[in-house]
Amino acid sequence: MSVYDRLSKLQISLPTTAAPSAASVPFVRTGNLLFVSGHIAKKDGKPWVGQLGSQMTTVEGQEAARTIAIDLMGTLHSALGDLNRIKRIVKLMVLVNCEPTFTEQHLVANRASELFVEVFGEIGIQARSAFGVVQIPFGSCVEIDLVAEVR
Amino acid sequence: MSVYDRLSKLQISLPTTAAPSAASVPFVRTGNLLFVSGHIAKKDGKPWVGQLGSQMTTVEGQEAARTIAIDLMGTLHSALGDLNRIKRIVKLMVLVNCEPTFTEQHLVANRASELFVEVFGEIGIQARSAFGVVQIPFGSCVEIDLVAEVR
Amino acid sequence: MSVYDRLSKLQISLPTTAAPSAASVPFVRTGNLLFVSGHIAKKDGKPWVGQLGSQMTTVEGQEAARTIAIDLMGTLHSALGDLNRIKRIVKLMVLVNCEPTFTEQHLVANRASELFVEVFGEIGIQARSAFGVVQIPFGSCVEIDLVAEVR
Repeated sequence: MSVYDRLSKLQISLPTTAAPSAASVPFVRTGNLLFVSGHIAKKDGKPWVGQLGSQMTTVEGQEAARTIAIDLMGTLHSALGDLNRIKRIVKLMVLVNCEPTFTEQHLVANRASELFVEVFGEIGIQARSAFGVVQIPFGSCVEIDLVAEVR
Repeated sequence: MSVYDRLSKLQISLPTTAAPSAASVPFVRTGNLLFVSGHIAKKDGKPWVGQLGSQMTTVEGQEAARTIAIDLMGTLHSALGDLNRIKRIVKLMVLVNCEPTFTEQHLVANRASELFVEVFGEIGIQARSAFGVVQIPFGSCVEIDLVAEVR
Repeated sequence: MSVYDRLSKLQISLPTTAAPSAASVPFVRTGNLLFVSGHIAKKDGKPWVGQLGSQMTTVEGQEAARTIAIDLMGTLHSALGDLNRIKRIVKLMVLVNCEPTFTEQHLVANRASELFVEVFGEIGIQARSAFGVVQIPFGSCVEIDLVAEVR
């Protein structure tokens, strides 16, 4: 199955990447590497606000992380025109907006990691760093950036 | 206008990069990529101490971020001898030392992003991740690292 | 002295990298770059739990950081089969799980940075970002990821 077939089967439609601000952009390609900006979790088009460990559960955080993975795939599609040009998802950095008592950042991150594998198969398996941050722009609950290798 | 002309016009003089510690350095080049260490905000040569959301305003944080951008350019100049050898500012990571209630990390980061565009033009437009951290070395209010592509 | 001689002299034996989860792995190689996942501090095989500035001292954090550096070298050995294939330790990102009052993240990070230099010599000197985070998976006190250049 191709990447787009898998997206179809998962009933995922890729969003269009928001217009970039004047001074930064959703991605920059250098050589065969694509550096993708931090994408914040959104719900109904607005920042998905909340902190894990108090206002949100791990399960909700996982859903937010999965949503970001979809947005990141939308950006990759915008960047390359064709997701089949992805050679490898190299590295995810997953930031979880949380209380100092919340220690399940890896479980939140897993839902994003897993979706990359569901969609891209073996080349979707990434290196990853996940940790808790004190806050994220607009109060969003999760933020993820990534590095991908392209053909 | 060249990069140095733009710096002149903005009345910016680039600082000399501080002598590296024994075990880490301000930058490492690998192939055409330059990985630049996290630079903390300084004022009058000392760490610019403060947390956003309590001790410092967004506007002050923006000024601190702009100051770091200048220091980063100083490091790029040291690394390359000539800023015209920069092919692209690829990625900024902007860390804001803040309270859990502060959600304007992107606004703080904008001032650094914008200065790269003012000085480098189109090749200064970067991918970026910005988020809030609980503390930064020496209590500094903002820290930024970057990846650049060089010729 | 070779890298392995230095490890011997320091009485360091490299651990085997834990089996990867289904959706992420300890490292991904792309071209000549190796992106290594965030490794959390462990003690006796379990997460080394604690926050700097309250439950742990800087000296304890340094010991934890050194332990992670050893684990990272174990991963590099697993990735390459031979640590002599490392051309350069390019960049460390050092995350310290700490209170908002703790400002010695750089001192914690130094112990990891220094071990890379002790073992790899000049090519072990890295670019680095260190900062404080509100929490780390499993409550671990320090987390470090890295980028290395390989032959």
